[in-house]
Amino acid sequence: MQAYDKLINAVKHKNSILCVGIDPVLDKLPLHYPKTVDAMLDFCKKIIDSTADYASAMKVNFAFFEQYGVEGFKALEETIHAIPDDIFIVADAKRGDIANTSIAYAKSVFDTLKCDSVTVNPYMGYDSVQPFLDYKDKMIFVLALTSNKGSNDFQRLISDGKPIYDHVIRTSMKWSDERQIGYVVGATHPNDLSEIRKLVKSNVLLIPGVGVQGGDVEQIIKANNNGPAIINSSRAINYASSGSDFAEAASELAKLTRDKFNKYR
Amino acid sequence: MQAYDKLINAVKHKNSILCVGIDPVLDKLPLHYPKTVDAMLDFCKKIIDSTADYASAMKVNFAFFEQYGVEGFKALEETIHAIPDDIFIVADAKRGDIANTSIAYAKSVFDTLKCDSVTVNPYMGYDSVQPFLDYKDKMIFVLALTSNKGSNDFQRLISDGKPIYDHVIRTSMKWSDERQIGYVVGATHPNDLSEIRKLVKSNVLLIPGVGVQGGDVEQIIKANNNGPAIINSSRAINYASSGSDFAEAASELAKLTRDKFNKYR
Repeated sequence: MQAYDKLINAVKHKNSILCVGIDPVLDKLPLHYPKTVDAMLDFCKKIIDSTADYASAMKVNFAFFEQYGVEGFKALEETIHAIPDDIFIVADAKRGDIANTSIAYAKSVFDTLKCDSVTVNPYMGYDSVQPFLDYKDKMIFVLALTSNKGSNDFQRLISDGKPIYDHVIRTSMKWSDERQIGYVVGATHPNDLSEIRKLVKSNVLLIPGVGVQGGDVEQIIKANNNGPAIINSSRAINYASSGSDFAEAASELAKLTRDKFNKYR
Repeated sequence: MQAYDKLINAVKHKNSILCVGIDPVLDKLPLHYPKTVDAMLDFCKKIIDSTADYASAMKVNFAFFEQYGVEGFKALEETIHAIPDDIFIVADAKRGDIANTSIAYAKSVFDTLKCDSVTVNPYMGYDSVQPFLDYKDKMIFVLALTSNKGSNDFQRLISDGKPIYDHVIRTSMKWSDERQIGYVVGATHPNDLSEIRKLVKSNVLLIPGVGVQGGDVEQIIKANNNGPAIINSSRAINYASSGSDFAEAASELAKLTRDKFNKYR
């Protein structure tokens, strides 16, 4: 199935726009866990199992695995493998490089790791993104306006009357259609998201930055105006409890978060 | 030793500004090699051994390893480990993410993989780069004006009379000094490089794009005006011969390339 259809189906059948982010940190594992990569993998699998009923998508943050070297990369593969087939997988890897290198990154996330989509950084332009689009049944999420404070440094510089992130969106919309291209827009910018939604009516928005990062759910869902979107929550759900009830706590919070999202859409 | 000092010493003692890029591709391995990751690792080690006398730096392209999953990541670790101690190591990974994620990427390249420096993508701004700068004895190379055609898409948009890459440089120069921050400027843009060199007198430039990508050596070295710089060559040297003499051919071409660089500086 085309990744785009898989996502739209998952949102519909699960009645959920929740994307659960998998951001494992050894120091934050439940207190009874040893601080090992094996324990981290076990933790990830339990978070996946306990939240799967409430999530249409899961976003795996590559950095948190890569920092543990070969062992971490093995845990990354197994974590992705543990995600149920009906859940849309985002490889949160922020890739992008000259063409022959992007070809290798695309192989890594799509062929080797079997993800449905990947986050890509647009700074290097069209030919750095094209190799990902050559996988016609996969999706990319182009970084547009990110949730962090540093988004002010360059993404908001004005060129020809419009911020750079607006140029990124307008230009990249020509590269393929909404079945292949979505955008990352941080939940910390509801007013801008409202404007972006007018520009990209049919493209999926991947919205991080609620929860720990402080984005307001009601504001952001209203700004999104019922366009196709998934809203990510990572840390709040991953670390809902540091006790032996962490999986139940994550499950409960995922359910509450899904319901809260549904209340406003 | 501070990474910056290591690089300056290496350039001086080896009388070389050549950075050898390690870009292994199974299909391009010497004809007598099996097309396996083990063979790829052996190839990388032989390229390192045979070119080490002529290189002050080596740049390892993470994508080419990551595409082979766990096995590839293991080969990446061993490849980095095989680089002699006196050679400056660039992790060519184009990293950059929100702060807690960039912390993990920084751990990965500096603590786990023991690289001296990493290429970083500036699109997400200051807080995405800061975690790398927290490693005071390491260096980063910020993507400014990349060698590929797509560099025209966003890097050259004009804001307040100056291209975006110029803003990236001016802003990021405030984040730390030349001992920590260098810039990636493609050899395919000699005129711009000449202007950039006026702006960043003391920062190291990492210049890819000679050889296969077509940058002109004489032009680019003159444009650099004797500022601190390393010029990367990957594919031309890696694949100098597809026969059993590949290591000798790589060695010979590395020597010629070093000498050619020295002729113009």
